[in-house]
Amino acid sequence: MEKKLKIAVIGGGSSYTPELIEGFIKKATEVPVSEIYLVDVEQGKEKLEIVGNLARRMVEKAGLDIKINLTLERKEAIDGADFVITQFRVGGIDARIRDEKIPLKYNVIGQETTGPGGFAKALRTIPVILEICKDIEELSPNAWLINFTNPSGIITETALKHSKVKALGLCNVPVNMISHVAKACGVEMERIYIQFAGLNHLVWGLRVYLDGEDITEKLMEQLTSEENMTMKNIPALEWDKDLIKSLGMLPCPYHRYYYMMDKMLEEEKRQSASEGTRGEVVKKVEQELFELYKNPELAEKPPQLERRGGALYSYAACNLISSIVNNKKDIQVVNVKNNGTILDLPENVVIETNCVIDKDGAHPLSIGRVPARIRGLMQVVKAYEELTIEAGVNGDYNAALQALTIHPLVPSTGIAKKILDNILAENRDYLPQFFK
Amino acid sequence: MEKKLKIAVIGGGSSYTPELIEGFIKKATEVPVSEIYLVDVEQGKEKLEIVGNLARRMVEKAGLDIKINLTLERKEAIDGADFVITQFRVGGIDARIRDEKIPLKYNVIGQETTGPGGFAKALRTIPVILEICKDIEELSPNAWLINFTNPSGIITETALKHSKVKALGLCNVPVNMISHVAKACGVEMERIYIQFAGLNHLVWGLRVYLDGEDITEKLMEQLTSEENMTMKNIPALEWDKDLIKSLGMLPCPYHRYYYMMDKMLEEEKRQSASEGTRGEVVKKVEQELFELYKNPELAEKPPQLERRGGALYSYAACNLISSIVNNKKDIQVVNVKNNGTILDLPENVVIETNCVIDKDGAHPLSIGRVPARIRGLMQVVKAYEELTIEAGVNGDYNAALQALTIHPLVPSTGIAKKILDNILAENRDYLPQFFK
Amino acid sequence: MEKKLKIAVIGGGSSYTPELIEGFIKKATEVPVSEIYLVDVEQGKEKLEIVGNLARRMVEKAGLDIKINLTLERKEAIDGADFVITQFRVGGIDARIRDEKIPLKYNVIGQETTGPGGFAKALRTIPVILEICKDIEELSPNAWLINFTNPSGIITETALKHSKVKALGLCNVPVNMISHVAKACGVEMERIYIQFAGLNHLVWGLRVYLDGEDITEKLMEQLTSEENMTMKNIPALEWDKDLIKSLGMLPCPYHRYYYMMDKMLEEEKRQSASEGTRGEVVKKVEQELFELYKNPELAEKPPQLERRGGALYSYAACNLISSIVNNKKDIQVVNVKNNGTILDLPENVVIETNCVIDKDGAHPLSIGRVPARIRGLMQVVKAYEELTIEAGVNGDYNAALQALTIHPLVPSTGIAKKILDNILAENRDYLPQFFK
Amino acid sequence: MEKKLKIAVIGGGSSYTPELIEGFIKKATEVPVSEIYLVDVEQGKEKLEIVGNLARRMVEKAGLDIKINLTLERKEAIDGADFVITQFRVGGIDARIRDEKIPLKYNVIGQETTGPGGFAKALRTIPVILEICKDIEELSPNAWLINFTNPSGIITETALKHSKVKALGLCNVPVNMISHVAKACGVEMERIYIQFAGLNHLVWGLRVYLDGEDITEKLMEQLTSEENMTMKNIPALEWDKDLIKSLGMLPCPYHRYYYMMDKMLEEEKRQSASEGTRGEVVKKVEQELFELYKNPELAEKPPQLERRGGALYSYAACNLISSIVNNKKDIQVVNVKNNGTILDLPENVVIETNCVIDKDGAHPLSIGRVPARIRGLMQVVKAYEELTIEAGVNGDYNAALQALTIHPLVPSTGIAKKILDNILAENRDYLPQFFK
Repeated sequence: MEKKLKIAVIGGGSSYTPELIEGFIKKATEVPVSEIYLVDVEQGKEKLEIVGNLARRMVEKAGLDIKINLTLERKEAIDGADFVITQFRVGGIDARIRDEKIPLKYNVIGQETTGPGGFAKALRTIPVILEICKDIEELSPNAWLINFTNPSGIITETALKHSKVKALGLCNVPVNMISHVAKACGVEMERIYIQFAGLNHLVWGLRVYLDGEDITEKLMEQLTSEENMTMKNIPALEWDKDLIKSLGMLPCPYHRYYYMMDKMLEEEKRQSASEGTRGEVVKKVEQELFELYKNPELAEKPPQLERRGGALYSYAACNLISSIVNNKKDIQVVNVKNNGTILDLPENVVIETNCVIDKDGAHPLSIGRVPARIRGLMQVVKAYEELTIEAGVNGDYNAALQALTIHPLVPSTGIAKKILDNILAENRDYLPQFFK
Repeated sequence: MEKKLKIAVIGGGSSYTPELIEGFIKKATEVPVSEIYLVDVEQGKEKLEIVGNLARRMVEKAGLDIKINLTLERKEAIDGADFVITQFRVGGIDARIRDEKIPLKYNVIGQETTGPGGFAKALRTIPVILEICKDIEELSPNAWLINFTNPSGIITETALKHSKVKALGLCNVPVNMISHVAKACGVEMERIYIQFAGLNHLVWGLRVYLDGEDITEKLMEQLTSEENMTMKNIPALEWDKDLIKSLGMLPCPYHRYYYMMDKMLEEEKRQSASEGTRGEVVKKVEQELFELYKNPELAEKPPQLERRGGALYSYAACNLISSIVNNKKDIQVVNVKNNGTILDLPENVVIETNCVIDKDGAHPLSIGRVPARIRGLMQVVKAYEELTIEAGVNGDYNAALQALTIHPLVPSTGIAKKILDNILAENRDYLPQFFK
Repeated sequence: MEKKLKIAVIGGGSSYTPELIEGFIKKATEVPVSEIYLVDVEQGKEKLEIVGNLARRMVEKAGLDIKINLTLERKEAIDGADFVITQFRVGGIDARIRDEKIPLKYNVIGQETTGPGGFAKALRTIPVILEICKDIEELSPNAWLINFTNPSGIITETALKHSKVKALGLCNVPVNMISHVAKACGVEMERIYIQFAGLNHLVWGLRVYLDGEDITEKLMEQLTSEENMTMKNIPALEWDKDLIKSLGMLPCPYHRYYYMMDKMLEEEKRQSASEGTRGEVVKKVEQELFELYKNPELAEKPPQLERRGGALYSYAACNLISSIVNNKKDIQVVNVKNNGTILDLPENVVIETNCVIDKDGAHPLSIGRVPARIRGLMQVVKAYEELTIEAGVNGDYNAALQALTIHPLVPSTGIAKKILDNILAENRDYLPQFFK
Repeated sequence: MEKKLKIAVIGGGSSYTPELIEGFIKKATEVPVSEIYLVDVEQGKEKLEIVGNLARRMVEKAGLDIKINLTLERKEAIDGADFVITQFRVGGIDARIRDEKIPLKYNVIGQETTGPGGFAKALRTIPVILEICKDIEELSPNAWLINFTNPSGIITETALKHSKVKALGLCNVPVNMISHVAKACGVEMERIYIQFAGLNHLVWGLRVYLDGEDITEKLMEQLTSEENMTMKNIPALEWDKDLIKSLGMLPCPYHRYYYMMDKMLEEEKRQSASEGTRGEVVKKVEQELFELYKNPELAEKPPQLERRGGALYSYAACNLISSIVNNKKDIQVVNVKNNGTILDLPENVVIETNCVIDKDGAHPLSIGRVPARIRGLMQVVKAYEELTIEAGVNGDYNAALQALTIHPLVPSTGIAKKILDNILAENRDYLPQFFK
């Protein structure tokens, strides 16, 4: 392969960027990158400089000829890019902390991607992703948009419904589930295959295979005694064993918010009162990380980044890009348009499932109908997501109120309204669609 | 029309029976009944006698030649019957009170048809409806089963999935919604038409018409100030105006348990602590009713029955029977097999919707897809219903636990398990499928 | 009801108009018409005058206060109309004769609505119906478009897919099938009910009822000896008894072109060579009719009109209008958007089926899935119809060629191309979309 | 991998067997076979001996330790088998010749898999495949049934609908289409990828890729001048260029029977009158082949076998088996249960499409909805297939008559009946289900 790739990273000043750069370095032989544009907004300029310089040192140390460009001009980065990776966070970590705290005031789960917190994040992000898509349509219509910005399913669906951009949504949850199962089985990740179906941060492993043999039941038994099937961003409560047994399949870590809502809420409140919300903890972690990043001797991803929580993020991203570039036709878990893959969901929504990846994109493996045990929850959360997109795109208050009302974690329209009004008031600067 | 009809009423000793008898008396010219069998179980023998004698006096006073038979032999009643009406209550009013109280212990809505209470009732009822269906298949395969026993949708779906009986589910909620809208508009019921879609006790009025004109929006405005769109069995809280406005369609009274869960729970707890649960109130009302029924001078439905809560019950039942008998092809709201009517639900489940009624049964009017605002809740409750049927038919503990887990009113698997174990322990005598 | 109706009849100079006028006269008490606009094109001016004057004499004789307006200005007629009835024929009877003759040259069925003949008619009609719809959107957006112009399903689907007009397609086939069954049973039409499913001129009677009793099987036996289940426009060959027996349901007369293609082709060729195609016969009939219509003494529909073939046309039209106006909620057979009514067809196509008719339009009764015996033919003809619309709207040659290629009556792409090129050449004046 | 495989080949005496044996020899390192059972019926005993001995010589020459067993006892072969390959032909080549000749008498395409010929073959084969499935269920329930017996889609669907056997249907058409496209492009097969959708012998290549780049349009242009996209069993007429252009995708060779029916029929009649039907030609080829096979010096597949027509047969079969055994997760084209993969077809039917192959079987890639251009033909042929299975399983004359009636190559019920009666009369010995 001759052509060298241009990569644009929106939200390039993120503390995650060294992870991503490391991924490109590792994949350098199969993914030939010539330049990476790290883009950020004015407020993120300092971080962009710090992380950009670290990136340059990493590339240099690896002896690679990849040019790292730092810019505040998104269009410049997108123009002619082959891949646009979105990992930005509108409003930064402070907005996240607000997202976590507002629902907690009303005894509702406060989490950055699930429930009202994720809803607030979606409302802030939707206007920006629409602008990015417009830029791509104009400046690089053949580029792939690899979206990592959460809530990844909602943002990817917004891009697919409201633009012509070739968007794929990514998340490190499925790959971490594979990794955890591999550890539980004491084998390499490559030997584990999971049939995933669901939505982003609401994905189930329907069947689990080891070397092609179905080990689902065996694993379910094991899981009831296993404690570490979780993600850094989620309080690490043990799984409810009765849940696992009666469910008969693999939940994702975020399912705890639904299946163990009472305990999770309690734990969140406890944490918020002691060490602070996850966002507050992360804020400190980030500050420490950026101090480390500043060190001109540092030329690799520091091990401390793992405390931040994006495990296997660049593994997922670079594998996806490599399979597209190299037309690999291997199977990865991606957020794509449903198009009948799961018969229980509308055709035009985004799902998270196993896809064959090649130069033409992500081609989901047909699922058919899912068991009643997971169908209803998947459907109601998808309806919430659709309403959130409707609200986020049009600034529609009624759609927003209904989105929160039907969310399984919100107990009533009354509470929904209080949370919504609070979100709108505290995010006024980021919600032009509601304050026209 | 020549043929005279035989009617079997399972649960004939119910306090509602005079309401039903009154219905047959009013419809006597178009529904020619020759005999009515009131069936009950041994424990209900005394009530059966009391209510049966009242029924006889009512018929006599009306000057009609309808023979009222009282029996404890269900097969005798079903044999050759044209219509089998089920209004029985397994475990009686005491079981209902337990259904209400168990969830409340865990801060969960305790209601006889919605949530864990309705779940418990379903588990008790499923084995009995399956026996009744077997009897009908054997003794009167052409009979219509008109099911009023709650949860009416679940019970009707059980009959349709697990027998060949021609079952139709009825509920007085839709007809009361029409009646309330008519009152709100100051017109006769006949001038109001509502397009209903949903499940039993979870039905929405998508569009409302007055003399064929769509008045939905106008009505929504009015409703936000209207307080009496409710049923006797439900605490009469005012509708949340923001709910109505953002929903843009007509909820049913039982939607309060979902949309206003926090307030409803508070109110239930308050009532339970003061005048007792609704079941406890009803128990007293029933005792008073049966005292009245004993009066040998009484030969009509006493006005006090209205406090019991079955408003328009016989209106719905007798209209349905009349339209079948007379091949009327008018439109009534019935619980029927979905068969694609609502595209967002499986084909083999039961829905509540407008149907053309004729000698061949109930033919639903096509709905297509419903708005996202109501779709998710409808789908998750239907998944709960399907799992409840699976659990109730097979005595499957895991299905039961999952049914409760995914119910929107239950906060977690942990709570679900506590409630389930409590239900199983307290209903042991009525749940042979779980204690084989 | 106070408001008096304005009716616009596009193609008002048709020989059918007296039939329609008679219908309005008969329904005068329930459908209060104040004025009828008969519209036609310049070439039809003379006919319009003749038939318009007859209409005026009919109305006068009936003692009704309905103003008959004759005009060549379509917009004038549509402006403020309550109902727009389309019965126009682009290119007149001579175009029809060409439609019949072109396919016959290639040994293919030549018929005005089915096969390549109907395809040619659709291509000519689509640009005109789109203009009419634009006029309605602009001048009378609440008007009902009652389309009688053939191929009625295709034209109605075009209107629904490419405009916002409230369009309903009508055809006299279903009502004639009911009438024939009634005659076969020796009863009044009102006692027969047929569950129809399919497409215009390709509709099956799935089940047939007499007074609500299912008589389908009995009727199938009878039909195999019955010869007159046919329409005037179709050569009256006896039904193939084996077809009826193995099909197990009621075909429509036009099904002969598919199920008995060889014999129908032979018969068409014989007729064409002797008395001429049906179009040629009709041309003479029409000339005679217009001679009759000129008679200033004539003030009613002459019995000779029945030879023309539109039996029960005004019965269907005026019943439909009356049920809309009077919010009747009775059941009629109409061409409407599928919207999931037949699960085997796309949601956005037009089907012909039983609908409840009220002020809000036509509401189809849910069908679900149809038996494999009829499914495939229905699906392939619908795909042909969709391609025909695509070709007709966009002037797309490839879509046109594929439409004819997949039509069951056309043996190959080679023949399809010959017929298509012939149609385009001979209809050049009426196909602006192909000759831009 | 340790376990050595047992392979059962039903119809082991076929002239194709050396092709299959060669495949196993080539794949010996990745597919470790210990024994192959060649099974045939009494009438095929001599051929079985001849071909079995050749197989032994081939294996010996290759220096492999594979035991070749010859038997007339199917159960012995199936007992404990890992793969059961079906390539039998009920009634032998003489039955095929009759299948070809009967339709031709009525001016209908006579072909062994498509149209009435394939229908007759299906009726003969269905009772036998059901027996084989029973044997597998009983003696080797975990075995994979790899069905090559034509009509492969119908036979595989029969196995899946009426047994619990893990059946996969194979055909060499898709792999030959890939091979032809590769030749047309002058590249290796591995560089071509085609997205296939449809039914066996009615499969379209929706999109064609070279090294992941979509070359569909370019190829369509090329194809209109390319003449050799065909199979040995099909008269090699040039493709109709207008068809290719207007279709915009890749038809399979058997599509000629539909799209170029008139010319194909003419050609078949010409051939039948001169060199004989394809079956008659094949009969001679087979006799010559068996003469060659007898040669005790021959220890490899003779080049003359290619004239027989099964090009790439063993390539497809052995690749499929290898991917299952080795859990490869590569993509191959297989006949599998639809399960929503193509939304335009029922869920429980068999389709031919791209599948990921692993130890757990074949997992189709989601297709969604197909274009109207191919939808209708695919649907009507599938309805024909479903009716054929219904007829073949139950011996249902009406279903059989309807199957032929709706087949696009049969002009009427009248002709269908003549052909059906002829088929039944001439195949009496093989159709126990019709002559009980």
